[in-house]
Amino acid sequence: MMDERLAVCLISGGMDSTTAAYLAKRQGFGIIGLHINYGQRTEERERRCARTIAELLGAREFMEVDIGYLLQIGRSSLTDRSIEVEDYDPSDEDLPTTYVPFRNANLLSIATSLAEARGAEAIFIGAQAQDYSGYPDCRREFMEAFQRAIDLGTSPRTHIRLIAPFLEMNKTEILRLGLSMGVPYGQTWSCYRGGDLACGRCGSCHFRRSAFRELGIEDPLRYEDEGHD
Amino acid sequence: MMDERLAVCLISGGMDSTTAAYLAKRQGFGIIGLHINYGQRTEERERRCARTIAELLGAREFMEVDIGYLLQIGRSSLTDRSIEVEDYDPSDEDLPTTYVPFRNANLLSIATSLAEARGAEAIFIGAQAQDYSGYPDCRREFMEAFQRAIDLGTSPRTHIRLIAPFLEMNKTEILRLGLSMGVPYGQTWSCYRGGDLACGRCGSCHFRRSAFRELGIEDPLRYEDEGHD
Repeated sequence: MMDERLAVCLISGGMDSTTAAYLAKRQGFGIIGLHINYGQRTEERERRCARTIAELLGAREFMEVDIGYLLQIGRSSLTDRSIEVEDYDPSDEDLPTTYVPFRNANLLSIATSLAEARGAEAIFIGAQAQDYSGYPDCRREFMEAFQRAIDLGTSPRTHIRLIAPFLEMNKTEILRLGLSMGVPYGQTWSCYRGGDLACGRCGSCHFRRSAFRELGIEDPLRYEDEGHD
Repeated sequence: MMDERLAVCLISGGMDSTTAAYLAKRQGFGIIGLHINYGQRTEERERRCARTIAELLGAREFMEVDIGYLLQIGRSSLTDRSIEVEDYDPSDEDLPTTYVPFRNANLLSIATSLAEARGAEAIFIGAQAQDYSGYPDCRREFMEAFQRAIDLGTSPRTHIRLIAPFLEMNKTEILRLGLSMGVPYGQTWSCYRGGDLACGRCGSCHFRRSAFRELGIEDPLRYEDEGHD
């Protein structure tokens, strides 16, 4: 047990990060779950999902971190209630309003501090660039730059590998992999809006539903417009 | 005023970050002060110092951010009360116990999010490697890696320059520069321990006092052992 290889897994409660954590487990890592609230609309539900996933994975530790400052800083529809979450629009070439400035660097810095303190060898992040090519901090080049910052900014004895397995995969491929590992997608949450049921129309719902549809599998989540679809 | 160039200045309340902020001002930047509490022993005093400095600089904005998670993560004598702050020992080759895992990456990620949201062009950080060569995240190579992460992880329209002017300067050189700009060092705090007066013996006090001594100038701060020194 003392010699178990550990991985810090960023678990938001959504599909991608959950699938990444299951992949870490399958690769033999003991899981340190890290869930970060940054004042997003759907915080409470995502927190519950992340905690459930960590339990199901038999995580060695589950840490919840609140970083209210992204809310103080503002500028994203995910954290600023005065900006509306837009419906998905494939013709829109701007960064989506849901972009949170430099969010992944903040998440990865926390994950690295935790990994260094616990002697973990890896960090898993579910970032994927395929669908949301608009998020600069979801690209391979960014992850490579951050890996270098980790290598140079931690103790010389520390070696942490940043693993972002889904950067070049789309939602359908991630879902297919996850289903093959038995990921309980009914326990995950994707919708950007804060309703009781998933809205079905925001960018995140859009790609999730398309993925299930493409594989011809029923999404265990319930949507607002169900029955009309 | 709308066209003023803005810089986010990380102001801890200590000598180096204060001097860096004065340098930003002298270079013509409008100042956005950013003070980050991470559960360190001397938090309250540093907060007061940072706020005073921001006022004296006529900062456009002063943001205080609390990140309790470095305390949750532990492993440093600055945040973990069960680990003692050691006296300065030049023969010790290990990382000092005051090392907080990957701290500067966390601070810089927050600063970058704020800079991107406000349209600031620069981030000033007072990190210096000369005295504490033990901190990996205070080295030039780390700053260069982080600059690359900023370039790749923010919007293509965003251009933020990470300015760490003191990396190759020692405390005496920083102090000389600061005095030439009229930095009010009586309003700064350096001691790692949480006493009413500065202890005079921790690494941070040690280098501060040496610098004043070397320039033959009286430190406006009061120390515990004053009169015996």
